Amino acid sequence: MKNIVFFSFLVLVAFQQLFAYNLKSPNGNLILKFTLAGNGIPTYALSLGDKQVIENSRLGFELVNDDKSFLDDFEVGDIQTSSFDVTWQPVWGEEKDIRNQYNEMAVTLVQKEKNRRMLIRFRLFNDGLGFRYEFPMQKDLRHFIVKEECTQFAMTGDHTAYWIPGDYCTQEYGYTKSKMSEIRGLMNKAVDHQNIASKVIGEAAVQTALMLKTDDGLYINLHEAALLDYPCMHLELDSENRTFQSHLTPDAVGFKGTLQAPGVSPWRTIIVGTEAKDILASRITLNLNEPCKIQDTSWIRPTKFVGVWWEMIAGGGSWDYTSDYPTIKIGETDYTKAKPHGNHRANSQNVKRYIDFAAKNGFDAVLVEGWNIGWEDWVSNRKEFNFDYVTPYPDFDVKELNEYAHSKNVKLIMHHETGSAYRNYERHMDEAFQFMKQYGYDAVKTGYVGPIVPLGEYHYSQPMVNHFQYVVEKAAKYRIMVDGHEAVRPTGICRTYPNLIGNESARGNEFMSRVPLGHTTILPFTRLIGGPMDFTPGIFELDLSKINPNRHEKMKATITNQLALYVTMYSPLQMVADYPENYERFPDAFQFIKDVAVDWDKSVYLEAEPYEYLTIARKEKGSGNWFVGGTTGAQPHIAAFQFDFLDPGKKYMATVYADAADTDYENNQQAYTIRKMVVTNKSKFKQSVSIGSGFAISLFEITDNKKK
Amino acid sequence: MKNIVFFSFLVLVAFQQLFAYNLKSPNGNLILKFTLAGNGIPTYALSLGDKQVIENSRLGFELVNDDKSFLDDFEVGDIQTSSFDVTWQPVWGEEKDIRNQYNEMAVTLVQKEKNRRMLIRFRLFNDGLGFRYEFPMQKDLRHFIVKEECTQFAMTGDHTAYWIPGDYCTQEYGYTKSKMSEIRGLMNKAVDHQNIASKVIGEAAVQTALMLKTDDGLYINLHEAALLDYPCMHLELDSENRTFQSHLTPDAVGFKGTLQAPGVSPWRTIIVGTEAKDILASRITLNLNEPCKIQDTSWIRPTKFVGVWWEMIAGGGSWDYTSDYPTIKIGETDYTKAKPHGNHRANSQNVKRYIDFAAKNGFDAVLVEGWNIGWEDWVSNRKEFNFDYVTPYPDFDVKELNEYAHSKNVKLIMHHETGSAYRNYERHMDEAFQFMKQYGYDAVKTGYVGPIVPLGEYHYSQPMVNHFQYVVEKAAKYRIMVDGHEAVRPTGICRTYPNLIGNESARGNEFMSRVPLGHTTILPFTRLIGGPMDFTPGIFELDLSKINPNRHEKMKATITNQLALYVTMYSPLQMVADYPENYERFPDAFQFIKDVAVDWDKSVYLEAEPYEYLTIARKEKGSGNWFVGGTTGAQPHIAAFQFDFLDPGKKYMATVYADAADTDYENNQQAYTIRKMVVTNKSKFKQSVSIGSGFAISLFEITDNKKK
Repeated sequence: MKNIVFFSFLVLVAFQQLFAYNLKSPNGNLILKFTLAGNGIPTYALSLGDKQVIENSRLGFELVNDDKSFLDDFEVGDIQTSSFDVTWQPVWGEEKDIRNQYNEMAVTLVQKEKNRRMLIRFRLFNDGLGFRYEFPMQKDLRHFIVKEECTQFAMTGDHTAYWIPGDYCTQEYGYTKSKMSEIRGLMNKAVDHQNIASKVIGEAAVQTALMLKTDDGLYINLHEAALLDYPCMHLELDSENRTFQSHLTPDAVGFKGTLQAPGVSPWRTIIVGTEAKDILASRITLNLNEPCKIQDTSWIRPTKFVGVWWEMIAGGGSWDYTSDYPTIKIGETDYTKAKPHGNHRANSQNVKRYIDFAAKNGFDAVLVEGWNIGWEDWVSNRKEFNFDYVTPYPDFDVKELNEYAHSKNVKLIMHHETGSAYRNYERHMDEAFQFMKQYGYDAVKTGYVGPIVPLGEYHYSQPMVNHFQYVVEKAAKYRIMVDGHEAVRPTGICRTYPNLIGNESARGNEFMSRVPLGHTTILPFTRLIGGPMDFTPGIFELDLSKINPNRHEKMKATITNQLALYVTMYSPLQMVADYPENYERFPDAFQFIKDVAVDWDKSVYLEAEPYEYLTIARKEKGSGNWFVGGTTGAQPHIAAFQFDFLDPGKKYMATVYADAADTDYENNQQAYTIRKMVVTNKSKFKQSVSIGSGFAISLFEITDNKKK
Repeated sequence: MKNIVFFSFLVLVAFQQLFAYNLKSPNGNLILKFTLAGNGIPTYALSLGDKQVIENSRLGFELVNDDKSFLDDFEVGDIQTSSFDVTWQPVWGEEKDIRNQYNEMAVTLVQKEKNRRMLIRFRLFNDGLGFRYEFPMQKDLRHFIVKEECTQFAMTGDHTAYWIPGDYCTQEYGYTKSKMSEIRGLMNKAVDHQNIASKVIGEAAVQTALMLKTDDGLYINLHEAALLDYPCMHLELDSENRTFQSHLTPDAVGFKGTLQAPGVSPWRTIIVGTEAKDILASRITLNLNEPCKIQDTSWIRPTKFVGVWWEMIAGGGSWDYTSDYPTIKIGETDYTKAKPHGNHRANSQNVKRYIDFAAKNGFDAVLVEGWNIGWEDWVSNRKEFNFDYVTPYPDFDVKELNEYAHSKNVKLIMHHETGSAYRNYERHMDEAFQFMKQYGYDAVKTGYVGPIVPLGEYHYSQPMVNHFQYVVEKAAKYRIMVDGHEAVRPTGICRTYPNLIGNESARGNEFMSRVPLGHTTILPFTRLIGGPMDFTPGIFELDLSKINPNRHEKMKATITNQLALYVTMYSPLQMVADYPENYERFPDAFQFIKDVAVDWDKSVYLEAEPYEYLTIARKEKGSGNWFVGGTTGAQPHIAAFQFDFLDPGKKYMATVYADAADTDYENNQQAYTIRKMVVTNKSKFKQSVSIGSGFAISLFEITDNKKK
């Protein structure tokens, strides 16, 4: 920990009979202006140099059964400023050292008549702003209910927005790029339901992280950090005023937060830069979360894994075991008497095939879905007791398979699909985690498909946000890593609980046939702002009809695109998602997946434009090897950069996986070229990339021993 | 187990082009008629001798998102009849042997077009009818949602009803006696909220068990048995047709049951008799529940207990410990630094006083409420993490107190007030029960004050019914007895899980100042039909202003009334609720409380008329001693009976606790007389009882050794 220096840089400006307070970022480029406007209304504004980023925007809350709310009639009770500069080391991440440098201003607002205080804490970084509401312990504010949070983000113009529809239950959408003013008109088109649990907000509500680009070249990103026991925030566009306003997810009775003083809201974040890649390089989301609360993190490790999964998603294999029963009762249905339908993929023989494949190619683990009884009858039936998480199907030998895997230095990854019956999951969780430890599992993929059971909650309501966090903290006690699917979108909580090693919370590779081109060039600006995604890259057989003749869909991708994702879609948990036999058909391309790292000392964002292209270089943690990935959207792109990120004076063997002349994401997805060359930090690189494709480079230092 | 004899006694009668099927009770007095009326509508009717009890009444369900529902278009697919006669022994109860004798008819109804089956199973006892709906496993009925159960109870006239308002969250009401036709008009007056969690249904909806009396002298009781994972039923009066119709408690989204085939509804019960006491003697509710599922029940024992409770309820003592903090956070608030306000009653010194008192007087246990941190801030704040159930206040030494109690052969009773934060309770339950076992607790009183948290559910909705049962079954695994307060009303589940040793679910002694006279003469006909009540009798200081000068309320009772309740309000868990010093003022009356049993070989219902009077004699389990209790309502009463229930040829020393000449429930509550006399089974007894009072008799056999 570096020293923390406190000093004051407060500027007071007379404004509308009230006061304005300015705060500068450490480098002086960003200026936050807090104003108490007429009627005691708190507002803020943000500028970068001479450009306004956020115009005067209101702050506050509407409360339930409260004649005053936290909207106006405030006086400034106190202002505290401070400065902070600490560099910390994440357990895993895009870089080994993260600098957390900001100037802070904490404004205490007082409603005299009600004798109530609310504090707004601003943290101004060089690359953006975070602020949150705090409610100190006080006599006349104990417990209260939020009708709506009234935080505004007033834009300076009709910016370009990269957005998905606001939805209380799912983020699994393709993104729309449009002017803000077009959002309302495009909303219906943007709602292309693929998810059985969906509750669209409608009108002009969109999800965070929301990526924006101004006509004068600013990139702005709106999201939240440290979402804990509070409803997830959406943004509702007031088109007339070009203003986004917070829209929280309601609970079962329509409340938007049952809060207690003392307490805090999540941070609201505004990342801003003059280049798109500034957004990718920002660490604001992580920095606004609390430091790691897990003492011994030695058991948390980045993981590359294969799995019994794509066979069901793409190939028509089955999670379930039998067709004998119309419905299942856990503990009553006798599976030993059931006739297997023969399509169950999580059988011991098939799992062993994946274990062998993982061991042979140096992968860490094998995910197995559909191993536990109940899948015949699990979702969308409002069924509560759908799984017990400890009873395997008759053809899955949990003991033997774990022992077999461990003998080959491979772990099995547990799968807990809850069918969104979260109460049932909580009831069985201790037993389920104990079962995992008994057999040597140390990671679980969780799932929340379907409507929440008991009915009433949405996936992103406060009680569910509370649940998802409950799972992460409970798992940490058992030294179990969590990869949460269909859970609330991440907001940097992996800093505090690095056992939260992955999340889905966006449309992943499984639906790459159903997204606009460029999906993977927008996700790093949106979904990944909150934390890593289990995107499940690495599909080589991109024509799904080749796997399942009934499925006439092609993924909008190429093999080199799929390789690049291991670098561009940062995650400490990377799946090698395709069938083993599909990799065996392309052993030279597969080599990149075997080589690529999953944890990093450093990341360099070489070039980026949302929805168009994205090139990132990353240095493997501890080894000195570098990997570069680049992907494209709806336009071809010529990637051009210098290898100046490499260590000076060293020589590297670069292997470039790139388009062939005739690569085509629609008609020739599996065409690629591989070339090798020796490069130094003086070398330049240029690569033409076709639509919906990508390229990947591995860079191994050439030593006297010639490691590779 | 006696033999089960199967035979057929089916009678087919032509009726409206369709068919009617008659079933007779074992003694032939009751006749059930099942009819498939026009359009394939199932109906039933019930008669006793030449008197109609229930007129033709519809059966069925309205379903959500189902164009057909289970209302009509049925054909009879199959009829199965059988007979059953088994006598079983409850772990505890009003009698040691319970005869379960009925004739059964199972009617399978078919909706051909939908290829669906629903079965209605009728069990006709000599004293009433039970029936339920069953959904066998079938291809075209898997999971379905109930919009409303459409079971009717069509009455033959404008009967007298003893009712409380339908309410999804509480049964804590005083009863109204009125004609059925007056219910609607009296509803507003009947809703006298005393409970912070209440959701009145309104109109003419009332709760079960509903007690009815016809003008021609029939007594009818409507309730349900074996309410498991299904919403609790209310009865809505269709005044025009003099028909009660089932009205289930909705869940958070308004559904009234998410069901799965195979599955069953609870039993709907109609107890009928020509004398009021026939209703009290019925065992239909228990008989319709499944036999005991707990293998070893040796740890379940009837209990007489004192407690640190009335000091808070009546005396103004406090569950909480400090006034230092506006709100509390479990795990964060440091109680060791808090200044105690000095009014906390669950302090070690006071608890020891109760332990000493229990030991001295032969009571089994001491309940202590307010022992655990969080009470400053526990209810009606929508707060979820309000208790952890394992952290005592600084002045409560859990280890020392349990050791002290055990050294005196006394147990402490645990208290888990959940504040209705049921998810929080489930999360902590294992740890809480382990904590109990660690210190030697074997019984817990649970509480569900306030609205359900997370918000949305009502106390009696299916998800909450599921929760209450979850607690009972989980406790059974830990060999813990449960006394559930503010839980759903009991429906005989204590047969299956006899560790459910008590429930509140009605307005108890704590509100005897706020009920109409006669409350304790109606409860045995209503609330107690489902199972025992923790009524907390035994208050001797009935003028609450003597305990708390701020409380100008007198309980509508006398000391002899309070004594009688130990017999008339059957419970295997009986509190001795008053302050020790109040008992010490009346040692001769207190002797009855010390003597009276809590478990019985036999019960004799000597005389009864709801809301007027009630006299019951019970024989102590194993000892041969008898105890008699009688209470009165708004009229004075002369109790007169013969002791013919006593063993012939034996002499008993009877101690009679009765009114003094000037006893008055308003102005002279503590006046009583005690007289002793020798009686045999030939002796007659006559006792004048004043309004709101009662009498009690202990009968000990006189042997040569003169035991007492």
